[in-house]
Amino acid sequence: METLADAIRTLAVRGAPAIGIAAAYGCVLAAMNAPRGAGFEEGFRRRLDILAATRPTAVNLFHSIDAQRRVFEEWKSVEGLENALLRSADAMREDDLAASRAMGRFGADLLKPGSTVLTHCNAGGLATAGLGTALAVIYEARDRGILDRVYADETRPLLQGARLTSWELDRAGIPVVVMPDSAAASLLRTGSVDAVIVGSDRVAASGDAANKIGTYSLALAAKAHGVPFYVVAPVSTFDMSTASGEEIVIEQRGREELAVTGNMRILPAGVGVYNPAFDVTPAALITALVCEKGIIHSPDRDSVGAVVTGMDRT
Amino acid sequence: METLADAIRTLAVRGAPAIGIAAAYGCVLAAMNAPRGAGFEEGFRRRLDILAATRPTAVNLFHSIDAQRRVFEEWKSVEGLENALLRSADAMREDDLAASRAMGRFGADLLKPGSTVLTHCNAGGLATAGLGTALAVIYEARDRGILDRVYADETRPLLQGARLTSWELDRAGIPVVVMPDSAAASLLRTGSVDAVIVGSDRVAASGDAANKIGTYSLALAAKAHGVPFYVVAPVSTFDMSTASGEEIVIEQRGREELAVTGNMRILPAGVGVYNPAFDVTPAALITALVCEKGIIHSPDRDSVGAVVTGMDRT
Repeated sequence: METLADAIRTLAVRGAPAIGIAAAYGCVLAAMNAPRGAGFEEGFRRRLDILAATRPTAVNLFHSIDAQRRVFEEWKSVEGLENALLRSADAMREDDLAASRAMGRFGADLLKPGSTVLTHCNAGGLATAGLGTALAVIYEARDRGILDRVYADETRPLLQGARLTSWELDRAGIPVVVMPDSAAASLLRTGSVDAVIVGSDRVAASGDAANKIGTYSLALAAKAHGVPFYVVAPVSTFDMSTASGEEIVIEQRGREELAVTGNMRILPAGVGVYNPAFDVTPAALITALVCEKGIIHSPDRDSVGAVVTGMDRT
Repeated sequence: METLADAIRTLAVRGAPAIGIAAAYGCVLAAMNAPRGAGFEEGFRRRLDILAATRPTAVNLFHSIDAQRRVFEEWKSVEGLENALLRSADAMREDDLAASRAMGRFGADLLKPGSTVLTHCNAGGLATAGLGTALAVIYEARDRGILDRVYADETRPLLQGARLTSWELDRAGIPVVVMPDSAAASLLRTGSVDAVIVGSDRVAASGDAANKIGTYSLALAAKAHGVPFYVVAPVSTFDMSTASGEEIVIEQRGREELAVTGNMRILPAGVGVYNPAFDVTPAALITALVCEKGIIHSPDRDSVGAVVTGMDRT
């Protein structure tokens, strides 16, 4: 289980839905690794706390660990617990795939034929159990024959757009063009992008959405050029207990991600870094939120609440 | 001379004023390398054309080659020409240093005590003959005791902010924090930045300013958060023959700058790139232009013309 916790910490597993599912399976490992006998409950709960502490922003992590905690509380015995946790994790994985398909359909309804789409980071199959969130929309648009091409921000510092999104889309036969994050505003000004589509790591009750650093900058540029900005995230990524984006804890990443490029050290020792993993895009900049339950146009507290409350799986 | 042309092409020499000065010295080398006798003029002019073709956006390149062409036309003989060109290049270098000092003083007048400044790319001593443009303001603010710290965008893809600006400021004892370009908008939202200060590669008659890719994105974010956005450039960077930013030719750089990071190839072979070297920030987003002649608040055709016309050194 420590290996899996490390995989989440070091971003070997990344993307909010994938983190949630990995953590659910991590809870199975926690049950397997905890000492048998009187110390079981304490050992199991301690391991769950370790998993929950791996990343501070992705709400799916807490949702799925909480769900497994409830499985344990219902079960209240070691007997058969591992299987119950495993069934629960499998169900989450299947729900995630079904949610991806539904988000893909709703999102593609927002696109016109011949669309050029811009995306940031990786919100695809490598971020979820299956098709992804933002990229599920792109796959569906391709299947409907309405997708022209995709522009992908390279997404500094870890280059998820260049390393993951471009690989994933190229492999799927979708024309993809990678660019520096800072070139997106110029590209939007040319008028050649019809929609910006991104995922999210946590959506607050207000509709404010945390996502990979750079998303907010992109949303400002999309607004300035009148390009629709869509955030695609399953209900499991909505956190109704977080009232607004201001309450979302933003993880600060380490210095090395900026100080070293490839095998070269480029920052002098005395130089500081500002390296937040995420930023928050206010609902006012989001044209629509897309989840598996439908499309929330011009999201705000009321419209988000209407779609999500009562359907939140946690 | 071919070595120097290569140095400009490959960005070993970069920054608009430094390119201009290097090209002026390149003209001296062109005169030294051109065949003596009847073929001299043709050989000399051909070499100047090679220098002029190294970079398409930095107007200082054309200004300084044109100035050297006029030296040749006045001289009209090989006798003593090399010395005349050398004196002209030396004068440009000295003018550049004097202009840096003047820009530093005017720019620092715009800052209040305890200022935190954000900059993009490298507009410092490594971009000019001496103190730089945007960084001349920062050095002057430090000397006046009104500078708190500098945030530097790392500036993808070539990382001039991380490699050059941070090194240069750290060496000067100025506290500097490097961040991904895409984090600037989030930082501006925190309210901790008092001013954004950048250089320029070409300022059009309208006040629109071309600068390193990402500058436009930063200007949009500064505007959205009410943070003043200053562009610092010597008169030699103003091009009154370019009416507006739309006429500025933007150099597209090669695929390798995005496909390879350090020693790792990260882009699949089939993936395209969008890699413009520069973008254009419209005058409407520029709080003030700072040149060695003074400060142009809310720049437009009239205010730019009033300051620059008649003072343009070309």
